[in-house]
Amino acid sequence: METLTPALACRHFRVQMSTSGPTEFIDITDRLQQLVADASLGIGIVNVQTLHTTTAIVVNEHEPLLLTDFRAMLEAAVPDDARYRHDDAALRTVNLTADERRNGHAHCRALMLPTATALNISGGRLILGRWQRIFFVELDGPRDREISILLFGEAWR
Amino acid sequence: METLTPALACRHFRVQMSTSGPTEFIDITDRLQQLVADASLGIGIVNVQTLHTTTAIVVNEHEPLLLTDFRAMLEAAVPDDARYRHDDAALRTVNLTADERRNGHAHCRALMLPTATALNISGGRLILGRWQRIFFVELDGPRDREISILLFGEAWR
Amino acid sequence: METLTPALACRHFRVQMSTSGPTEFIDITDRLQQLVADASLGIGIVNVQTLHTTTAIVVNEHEPLLLTDFRAMLEAAVPDDARYRHDDAALRTVNLTADERRNGHAHCRALMLPTATALNISGGRLILGRWQRIFFVELDGPRDREISILLFGEAWR
Repeated sequence: METLTPALACRHFRVQMSTSGPTEFIDITDRLQQLVADASLGIGIVNVQTLHTTTAIVVNEHEPLLLTDFRAMLEAAVPDDARYRHDDAALRTVNLTADERRNGHAHCRALMLPTATALNISGGRLILGRWQRIFFVELDGPRDREISILLFGEAWR
Repeated sequence: METLTPALACRHFRVQMSTSGPTEFIDITDRLQQLVADASLGIGIVNVQTLHTTTAIVVNEHEPLLLTDFRAMLEAAVPDDARYRHDDAALRTVNLTADERRNGHAHCRALMLPTATALNISGGRLILGRWQRIFFVELDGPRDREISILLFGEAWR
Repeated sequence: METLTPALACRHFRVQMSTSGPTEFIDITDRLQQLVADASLGIGIVNVQTLHTTTAIVVNEHEPLLLTDFRAMLEAAVPDDARYRHDDAALRTVNLTADERRNGHAHCRALMLPTATALNISGGRLILGRWQRIFFVELDGPRDREISILLFGEAWR
């Protein structure tokens, strides 16, 4: 008779996506639940990290009008049409690219939101409350984007 | 003579609490330190995650007047009495419940604060600076609430 | 012939630094990459946690004008010269020290930013997007400061 013993499991994934608007909330909950299920992790952590400086990873309710409220709040807190020195071609000398975007507002909004969010796994599933959904947040789209996902925990094998 | 060797330890807990006001900061530091001590973890991470979309987990100083300043800041940044489409019964069709609350402001405030915070463990204790305390933040109370706590690290056994 | 097997690796470090201005972004990316390389971690997580309540750990682009925009945004959202009850000597009775600072604004700004950020490791390196840099954020300097860094993952040995 063999006895199952817990073993360390550690997996890294990259996921690509394309956004379609300037500010967009993309629900990635189902994709993350599938990765957790495939990894056969009983208990552990998943760390979801965006790889861009004008995006974020947040958790909130997936209700379309609420997402509109979020967009309005970000616009009110950090207006699109304010003056950002990052966008001043007469001043900028650092990190300039051929296709430079006017996106100071998007960086400032990203500073207010998490670059990465760690969520708990138990019973082989992401632990989420009734209304909790995980969103990739685009703040300077449309763009092609990529996130990094690290699963870490105890697997039975 | 036996030699102690490090082994993976991974534990998950749920903690319930009841809040008593609309916006409230509940200090959960001592409860978390006790969980870390009981787990006999020498070194590792604890990830503290709220299970609600109108709450947060933050770290700051536990000084009563400062908590009043935090409430004032949240109210100034995201006013309670502004118009939120999430609260507009004439528009809403998604995620409606029998006891629907007017809480668009609470969701927007939650978006500005962390859903989860990961803290380090070393020497068998949470690593915290002199003034650091961990708070569960209620933004739409009073309510019965629940958090998820994942401890992960190296135990000696 | 020996076969390399993955093993749990868990290391904790503290790093000291001195800040030179009231609000300052200190790029700690290279120091973190070096710690990851020295730990011979193939895959895992690094959790970077500040030990102070008027500081933060963020990820964004290292472009000097953008850092100026960030300072302006923090000042606009939470003005330095507004009234904070935490700074009212006539009211305060808790956590008073001999060298009490007027820093209610710095605590409020810290509440809006992460105390800790977890980042993924794969291929023996921190996973970072093209423009992503990790900053320690001083909000009430100049001061001597300390951060806690926890590396956790799979090492080959």
